[in-house]
Amino acid sequence: MNLPTPEKNLHDIILDHINDLAKMDALKKILNEASELDLLDALHSLTGEYPGMVYRLLAKDKALDVFEQLDTDSQQLLIHALTDHAAIEIIEHLPPDDRVRLLDELPAKVAKKMLAALSPNERSMTNLLMGYEPDTAGRIMTPEYVNIKKEQTAEEALERVKIDALEKETIYTLYITDSTRKLEGVISLRDLIIAEPTDKIEDIMEKITTTVSTDTDQEEVAHILQKMDWLAIPVVDRESRLVGIITFDDIAQIIEDEATEDIEIMAALNPSETPYLKTGIFRQARNRIVWLMFLMLSATFTGFIIAGFEETLEAAIVLATFIPMLMDTAGNAGAQSATLVIRGMALGDIQFKDLLAVLWRETRVSIICGIALATANFARIFIFTNGGDYLLAFTVSFALIATVIMAKTVGCLLPLFAKKINVDPAVMATPLITTIVDAAALIIFFTFATLILHI
Amino acid sequence: MNLPTPEKNLHDIILDHINDLAKMDALKKILNEASELDLLDALHSLTGEYPGMVYRLLAKDKALDVFEQLDTDSQQLLIHALTDHAAIEIIEHLPPDDRVRLLDELPAKVAKKMLAALSPNERSMTNLLMGYEPDTAGRIMTPEYVNIKKEQTAEEALERVKIDALEKETIYTLYITDSTRKLEGVISLRDLIIAEPTDKIEDIMEKITTTVSTDTDQEEVAHILQKMDWLAIPVVDRESRLVGIITFDDIAQIIEDEATEDIEIMAALNPSETPYLKTGIFRQARNRIVWLMFLMLSATFTGFIIAGFEETLEAAIVLATFIPMLMDTAGNAGAQSATLVIRGMALGDIQFKDLLAVLWRETRVSIICGIALATANFARIFIFTNGGDYLLAFTVSFALIATVIMAKTVGCLLPLFAKKINVDPAVMATPLITTIVDAAALIIFFTFATLILHI
Repeated sequence: MNLPTPEKNLHDIILDHINDLAKMDALKKILNEASELDLLDALHSLTGEYPGMVYRLLAKDKALDVFEQLDTDSQQLLIHALTDHAAIEIIEHLPPDDRVRLLDELPAKVAKKMLAALSPNERSMTNLLMGYEPDTAGRIMTPEYVNIKKEQTAEEALERVKIDALEKETIYTLYITDSTRKLEGVISLRDLIIAEPTDKIEDIMEKITTTVSTDTDQEEVAHILQKMDWLAIPVVDRESRLVGIITFDDIAQIIEDEATEDIEIMAALNPSETPYLKTGIFRQARNRIVWLMFLMLSATFTGFIIAGFEETLEAAIVLATFIPMLMDTAGNAGAQSATLVIRGMALGDIQFKDLLAVLWRETRVSIICGIALATANFARIFIFTNGGDYLLAFTVSFALIATVIMAKTVGCLLPLFAKKINVDPAVMATPLITTIVDAAALIIFFTFATLILHI
Repeated sequence: MNLPTPEKNLHDIILDHINDLAKMDALKKILNEASELDLLDALHSLTGEYPGMVYRLLAKDKALDVFEQLDTDSQQLLIHALTDHAAIEIIEHLPPDDRVRLLDELPAKVAKKMLAALSPNERSMTNLLMGYEPDTAGRIMTPEYVNIKKEQTAEEALERVKIDALEKETIYTLYITDSTRKLEGVISLRDLIIAEPTDKIEDIMEKITTTVSTDTDQEEVAHILQKMDWLAIPVVDRESRLVGIITFDDIAQIIEDEATEDIEIMAALNPSETPYLKTGIFRQARNRIVWLMFLMLSATFTGFIIAGFEETLEAAIVLATFIPMLMDTAGNAGAQSATLVIRGMALGDIQFKDLLAVLWRETRVSIICGIALATANFARIFIFTNGGDYLLAFTVSFALIATVIMAKTVGCLLPLFAKKINVDPAVMATPLITTIVDAAALIIFFTFATLILHI
């Protein structure tokens, strides 16, 4: 019973002991008395041979429990470090949904070997799940739920729970199906325990419930579970037959992964599922280069705009000094709007039908922001040129207001339209918005300059 | 038992019925037969008077259940729409952690009135939680856990669970404390059900467990619960006495909120907790203007760099056409690295001690990316100028390689150093990185131009 000790401790103790045979017994004792959280942190942070060595020192039950909680990358490394026999024992012991996630990551040859070595029952369950599309409810569900009948009494149902308790993923929500496996209702173990032993399940179960289908996107599943605060949600096939459940422990990971994917796409990166330090150099370069190249070539067209105004620029080279400020402000203003709309859509706060509301909102906000920025800029130029160049100050300030309004309009509209045509709105984030509004900002600026400064 | 009907349906049915007294009974029936998920979606999407009207049509039990699942903003709107008596009844019924979250959002005067009207027991529990700092474990925990003694048998403990089942937040994890309330162990209801009725709790409980303290940051709590797949984590005070538990249903929300906060900060926004369409215009403008202003003034210094190279630029105005491409590429390359490092730190994949590993990785990736981009650019300039201006092509290409390396170095280092000095690394994202690397990119470009083109 301790506060969580900082990860460094167990990690360092392990490194201090592990290469010294005389200290092996002491280490074994320390490891088996450590909390699961400390063990997880140590296994995640150790590299090379060490995770395998540590793992082999754990008592079997503790080892199996810890393995189940490890992230998939670390599980994969361990599988490679263990004997086939030990690896198969672990995989047989994993809940079906975790097993599928791990097999998905293993090299096809290894996965096939492991699958073949499973007991027939576990193998057929695993094959079933692996038949569903990645990232769907079918792929992440587990078929191990507790099934009771509506004709049973509360007491009979509790007996069923006791029998099933060891092997089912959860016993805290029980599912009632008819003879054709159609879902008829749900009851929590809490309600079952409160009930009179003679109560009929039919009378105490909840009849109206929400289900998802096997092809529902995992992100949608996560959001429903999050909204309902349920421990598990039932998954049904096209004929409304119960085929599995998805439990709460998968939800936080899905929400975190989806946020990471959005954040990476929004920064012009091809999203990667492996942690930063575990991704190969060439893979990382590839994840970045496509977007960098596309955006660089797009920015070249922005250069053509400057080329088109070369005479204006030659007549007043001072205009060039405002280019970075205008481009950066345009990019930042557009990125703010795009980010708010993209995240709002991801959280379900904003839909395409809100387009006019969003546009009206952004217009008003951009006028306020534009005027504030322009005023600051006018004052700066006016003071720096001793009040001499008020025409230049006007040019820059008007261009700035128009630029902010334009940038925020583009920034809020593009993600909404992207969603409408089924493109991931996250693509319409900072980098692409910046490139587009940069070009527009320069056109606005040089047009105002030509008009106001008469060049 | 239905697939979730799209939100529009119930929403539209409500709008169709609600202003017609003759349809009121039909609506009442529809609402009370609807799934909780559909009701939640409808209540979240309805505006004005409607949520309050719908809510009053629900049967009391259903109404209380639905209220508990609503997001805090919608709860707040409903409280204002209901009579004081109805509002107090709801608040009395909420679990203490949800109640605190709602009271935090209500105007101080309303919150005080509600608090005063609670039963003494609920009031003292609420006051206790409200004494802890926002965003800490103490503030989000619930004191409603099931407490058993190690001397009890499994059968006696099960009896206790049955008695407590109605009022405790969860009965699926039970906590064992000594006479001074010190936490001694934990047992799951599953293990209790499997055990022999005569087994002593002492012998079947888990003695080693992970706890958090009342001042642990909620984000850390979320990550521990996520790692362990637990239903709840115990919260202890400085004397290791059990004071509450935090349950799984708060975790997904915390993870999502923290991701939203990071995404907003990374786009130069002051993070806002209210949904986009529910935030006032002036508040939204204020959330954006501070950063826009700061970044605009910073970009002004980038303009000074151009002013410093005015002679170079006048000698070869064509150089100006490459400014947008170089600035944008620098910004994008730096933003990619910064984003990966910021997110990696948020997920715990990267720590300050990994600085050299990160730097070495970014250097190699940036050399690969830089060469690829420079080659494409060289070819483009070479072809467009009919092979004439190879010196210009060299200038731009070398500047591009140096810029990408510089941008990626700055992009990966700044978030790491920010973390080191306890500044939120998310601040060191695209907008700030862009401003910094833009200036550096221009210096690199004009220096190369002076050297290679001899101007």
